[in-house]
Amino acid sequence: MDGIATLPEPPYTAVIFTARRSEKYQGYDEAAEAMVALAVQQPGYLGHESVEQADGLEITVSYWVNDEAARNWKKVAEHREAQRRGREDWYSHYEIRVARVERAYGHNQDTS
Amino acid sequence: MDGIATLPEPPYTAVIFTARRSEKYQGYDEAAEAMVALAVQQPGYLGHESVEQADGLEITVSYWVNDEAARNWKKVAEHREAQRRGREDWYSHYEIRVARVERAYGHNQDTS
Repeated sequence: MDGIATLPEPPYTAVIFTARRSEKYQGYDEAAEAMVALAVQQPGYLGHESVEQADGLEITVSYWVNDEAARNWKKVAEHREAQRRGREDWYSHYEIRVARVERAYGHNQDTS
Repeated sequence: MDGIATLPEPPYTAVIFTARRSEKYQGYDEAAEAMVALAVQQPGYLGHESVEQADGLEITVSYWVNDEAARNWKKVAEHREAQRRGREDWYSHYEIRVARVERAYGHNQDTS
């Protein structure tokens, strides 16, 4: 567990979430943890990777078995966020790109 | 310029690079800067986003007009890295996923 997701062979779906945190993010950490806990339980969840820089720039990529699973997660996540607090409160700017992963390769010193 | 790429409407291609830095990364910063400078000059380059966590986990997503442009960049990058120093020296583990972005949406407090 080094923060890099172990995934099946492509194809699968990636949801790339890039965001800049706003000044006011009270309650963010708890909510982010709760969202991850919720995501891993969703049908079609494959894994996720999340990196946050000291200056508040964040990229989280979640991986899903297909586009339908990603769309279902979007509905669940939005519902949950609406119940708590809008994503708009925590982020001054975010962009989400939903993509079909077509090929993948890598290198791991521990397994090569 | 808040670190989040401004991109055209989909479709386009995303190259998701997730990596964990190794202990020995002498020369990394200079090389990473040189690679970015090289990338932005490539045909079909649309933008990139890069986040690095204090613990050495990194996600960089580069965006390309199409798969061919992403493949061409791979060839150029590998050639350049081979000339300097292998990516294997800087990263204990990395995974690259090449994906076709099919839809995108977001929210920006400054423009909404």
